[in-house]
Amino acid sequence: MTTLELPAESVVDVLDTEVLRRLLDGRFADVKERFRAEAPADLFGPTDHLSTREHRDLTRERLRFLARWGGHELGYASRWGGADSPGGQVAQFEMLGFGDASLMIKSGVQWGLFGGAVQALGTERHHAELLGPLLRSELLGCFGMTETGHGSDVSSIGTSATYDATTREFVVHTPDPSCRKDYIGGAAEDADVSVVFAQLITDGEARGVHAFVVPLRQNGTDVPGVWRGDDGRKMGLNGLDNGRLGFDHVRIPRENLLNRYADVAADGTYSSPIASANSRFFTMLGALVKGRVSVSGGALSQTKVALEIALRYGARRSQFKRPGSSEEVVLLDYLAHQRRLLIPLATTYALSFAQDDLMGEMDDLLKVQLAGSDPDPQRQRAFEGHAAAMKVASTWHATRTIQTCREACGGNGFLAESRLPQLKADTDVFTTFEGDNIVLLQLVAKGLLTSYAQQFSDLDTLGMARLATRDFVATYAGRSPARSLVADVVEGGRVPEDLHDRGWQLRMLTDRERHITESLAKRMRKARSKPEAERFEAIDDLQDHLLLAGRAHTDRIVAEAFAAAIARCEDPTAAALLADVCDLHVLALLEAEKGWYLEHRRMTTLRAKAITGAVNALCRKLRPRTEDLLAGFGTPRHWLGSTLVG
Amino acid sequence: MTTLELPAESVVDVLDTEVLRRLLDGRFADVKERFRAEAPADLFGPTDHLSTREHRDLTRERLRFLARWGGHELGYASRWGGADSPGGQVAQFEMLGFGDASLMIKSGVQWGLFGGAVQALGTERHHAELLGPLLRSELLGCFGMTETGHGSDVSSIGTSATYDATTREFVVHTPDPSCRKDYIGGAAEDADVSVVFAQLITDGEARGVHAFVVPLRQNGTDVPGVWRGDDGRKMGLNGLDNGRLGFDHVRIPRENLLNRYADVAADGTYSSPIASANSRFFTMLGALVKGRVSVSGGALSQTKVALEIALRYGARRSQFKRPGSSEEVVLLDYLAHQRRLLIPLATTYALSFAQDDLMGEMDDLLKVQLAGSDPDPQRQRAFEGHAAAMKVASTWHATRTIQTCREACGGNGFLAESRLPQLKADTDVFTTFEGDNIVLLQLVAKGLLTSYAQQFSDLDTLGMARLATRDFVATYAGRSPARSLVADVVEGGRVPEDLHDRGWQLRMLTDRERHITESLAKRMRKARSKPEAERFEAIDDLQDHLLLAGRAHTDRIVAEAFAAAIARCEDPTAAALLADVCDLHVLALLEAEKGWYLEHRRMTTLRAKAITGAVNALCRKLRPRTEDLLAGFGTPRHWLGSTLVG
Repeated sequence: MTTLELPAESVVDVLDTEVLRRLLDGRFADVKERFRAEAPADLFGPTDHLSTREHRDLTRERLRFLARWGGHELGYASRWGGADSPGGQVAQFEMLGFGDASLMIKSGVQWGLFGGAVQALGTERHHAELLGPLLRSELLGCFGMTETGHGSDVSSIGTSATYDATTREFVVHTPDPSCRKDYIGGAAEDADVSVVFAQLITDGEARGVHAFVVPLRQNGTDVPGVWRGDDGRKMGLNGLDNGRLGFDHVRIPRENLLNRYADVAADGTYSSPIASANSRFFTMLGALVKGRVSVSGGALSQTKVALEIALRYGARRSQFKRPGSSEEVVLLDYLAHQRRLLIPLATTYALSFAQDDLMGEMDDLLKVQLAGSDPDPQRQRAFEGHAAAMKVASTWHATRTIQTCREACGGNGFLAESRLPQLKADTDVFTTFEGDNIVLLQLVAKGLLTSYAQQFSDLDTLGMARLATRDFVATYAGRSPARSLVADVVEGGRVPEDLHDRGWQLRMLTDRERHITESLAKRMRKARSKPEAERFEAIDDLQDHLLLAGRAHTDRIVAEAFAAAIARCEDPTAAALLADVCDLHVLALLEAEKGWYLEHRRMTTLRAKAITGAVNALCRKLRPRTEDLLAGFGTPRHWLGSTLVG
Repeated sequence: MTTLELPAESVVDVLDTEVLRRLLDGRFADVKERFRAEAPADLFGPTDHLSTREHRDLTRERLRFLARWGGHELGYASRWGGADSPGGQVAQFEMLGFGDASLMIKSGVQWGLFGGAVQALGTERHHAELLGPLLRSELLGCFGMTETGHGSDVSSIGTSATYDATTREFVVHTPDPSCRKDYIGGAAEDADVSVVFAQLITDGEARGVHAFVVPLRQNGTDVPGVWRGDDGRKMGLNGLDNGRLGFDHVRIPRENLLNRYADVAADGTYSSPIASANSRFFTMLGALVKGRVSVSGGALSQTKVALEIALRYGARRSQFKRPGSSEEVVLLDYLAHQRRLLIPLATTYALSFAQDDLMGEMDDLLKVQLAGSDPDPQRQRAFEGHAAAMKVASTWHATRTIQTCREACGGNGFLAESRLPQLKADTDVFTTFEGDNIVLLQLVAKGLLTSYAQQFSDLDTLGMARLATRDFVATYAGRSPARSLVADVVEGGRVPEDLHDRGWQLRMLTDRERHITESLAKRMRKARSKPEAERFEAIDDLQDHLLLAGRAHTDRIVAEAFAAAIARCEDPTAAALLADVCDLHVLALLEAEKGWYLEHRRMTTLRAKAITGAVNALCRKLRPRTEDLLAGFGTPRHWLGSTLVG
């Protein structure tokens, strides 16, 4: 008897879960490994029993510890004590997401938003004066962008900064309560200084939104004319002192304008290397996109904690006896429980790989910025779209998944000691801050329309003529809906198998994105050509279509990132497992979107049913691999901080 | 010129919103009116700033106030100081849901669960001794059913009550920590006594789960052998002292068995008017279904508060300038915002009407029970299914809608002062307690299968033969899927209009329920005929199908309740408005379920697109009626308790 005759089971390779972890850790694995190995356990102590006062105090103390412990400085230029590694900095932020989110966000305000704005929008004089103290937490800052009456529409903020050439100062002013800065982390208590976004006025002319450094407290005393309010208790993140700021003709030196993209000379002359006010504004905002990448990463970390708690609980807790037996059935052996938790687990894998790709892009672009140059505008724009898409996808995924985890743990999940309530409460605002998801998703879609229009401008006249006809979609997509449908059914005659064909899966997602974008472009053109009185409503009628386009785009890039990660996995055992996880992610998505696919004749009803069958089969198949897949997250057990996990 | 020549606009009737309110208030309007008129404002003061200690104290104090103020006694027999009006009692519970949910649930524990169990499962001796003190809150009780290791599967609880004929006592015992009572409201601190569900053992024989009255504290001193634990801080409902109970051979008199459905004689002889242990168990549980009806109503009240906050905020808050104008667009004028909030508003109307129907059924049945008789078993079973369906539908609706409201209010919705965080946190467990929604929905589906099987047993042999063929669905449903599809498209040639045809809408929902139930029945029969080793997994494979059947059933009864409410509305202006609201509810549901309809060829792709168009048009049409629709809820402004509402 040769080894070839051994039964199949005995030659199954044992999975090395470290391979999974390294793959998930991705490009900035070293930062993550250091954090796992060296972060002190008490950074992960519970905070849910604390009053607002105590929680704020503890968070401030922990921030001071981090300032000494390091990692936050990685994204800064090496000449200011950093390591020119923006990706490394965001990776550390992501790791903080396994602990108390208040600390993560507090550190994000100090070293991401505040420090990031000084670095990205300021110049040498600001860097020399502020970066050292802020990195050492000797100077605490906040990021004064949002106003009570102006959230997503930053260009409409009302705070003004009027240049007074006689004293060479800007006069920062809040014209009315709707223009107070609001929800600003650090504004209630801790911040000594704020980056304030305000309408710059010089020579009697409004020049649009610019950023200024405005001291709030000097030598321990509040700066006259600065009003501070406290946002009080919040749903979550109560370790962070969110508050309000108002300015009553507060004077700051001319030099406090963060003047990388525009300056005001002593005599009040305005100058900028960027001619268009609009591009200048978006260039400034674009320099701050790191915040969105960070929130996306942090949301995924909190989701991983919740999923691990719920899955480990589900694998231990039993309910109802197996028929004809006195033995109770473990929750996770029920198909419905598997669908509830294993599908989001698969999607968490997918989003993590996509997040790593995003981090890579960000790191490349910000390194250019750190070197004092401007990144390629087209690449920068693509990155901004990608960051917006991922921020939306990861934060909604967190909101939905943590909710599901709470419900999946029943009454136990309602107790603070399970940690799920705090994970839910803290992450809830992630869908809102750093750009409301609904607004961001429309930005993503508008980006798609722009790049579609560019491709369209490359078309010849014949192409344009075709565009006018209803056949364009088919022409552009390379095959007609009908052919696509046929292809779906008979492709190679392998109906049941090819659901797992990655090429087919990605084509399904690409095709959907393309169809939705193209039909949106046509409807948008029509809406824009309406008389002005009807135009707003005509465009507004497309809002849902716009949101759908943004989602379809995100779905495609996330799935592609997963496929690419599998392709670069050199361990065949791990790759085979990941292939199943990717199948589950994509097929569950196709199942959820079957309404669209059926409506647009991209899927037969037979195929739709087969997909549901395949999702169920994958759940059964991956159930015994839950432990391995959780090991891939690499979360030290004591970080989970839940009584539901033994 | 005659009045007939007046332009159409000028003859539009002005809506009397009181008509809406009376219709929504339904059968127990008098209780609701009294509550609105007389409940003191400080019952609605905020509690989000309180520590757990302070919140518990305030809630206990408020409960004492309610005990004097009345309303909670309505559901008790008039000879014990009640008013024989179970519906009235639940209506008051529902009204408490506009305030702090901790008080609502605290009162529900005392007068719904604890008092309800004494009344429904006890007999004269228990009523005489306990009902007076518990109604006056001199005796505080709790409801010890759930155990740490046994939630949904009550029949498997481990607490035992062994009869000792020598002392004529039951010995109540917790064999191991998984059998501690857990998550029990009142158990941590307040309860003097608990109704304890335990396995009754007498003459060495286990007789199944029964309920006992077990004192926890006597004359201010803890009863020896009773262990109490505190569940500590929770996601929400922190005014309620949830805790754990353990019993170490605690002896209680034989008379403490709540003996309406079973008794143990002094010598240990067991007797029951219900022969089957299984029916006895379900009869006892069935007597307690009022709790599910209450939670459903309370969930809707909290949802109404959240929706009113978010809608009023959305109608006031503006964001982004209207193109070609300096005027900003009000959030609620965006279609996406309308879809986010007006669809749940419509569904809240639908569920409220369905809830009122459920209350009517409950009131009828419990009046029979109060009179000492047993209700008609078939009607009781139907009611139990209906209650389970509504509990699931209302509580998931609350979870989803309050989440949406939080997000729709952006950063403002994250602040405690908006009240949305507390509404979210308090209601989150509603999907879990009084029966986990996933488990309840399966009960609903199993009820459908049973009644399907009954209809099936009425069929003749020919019918049974047909059942074996694939044509049965068509035969039973009265028309084939293909004919249904054709009918959908050409019915009367009025494709665009008949989306608003109520008959068509209800047929769509009925047809879906029937198809899903029938195919489930066939698959279930097949699964049950499998060899025992494969049977569990075969049945478990159908879990999603089971859940879908439960949802489809609920969707149908809710829509029917809405249609019936419109039919009984005598004011044509109100009825016309409600018809639009009902259209929005049903068409948004059909839109959400289009995947199923398309997959099962119950809808053409053309029709699917037309439905989306109709939903959008209804949102636009109902946008100006938001104020009227909120007025229908009749919520006094000061009850909203949110800084987002002026």
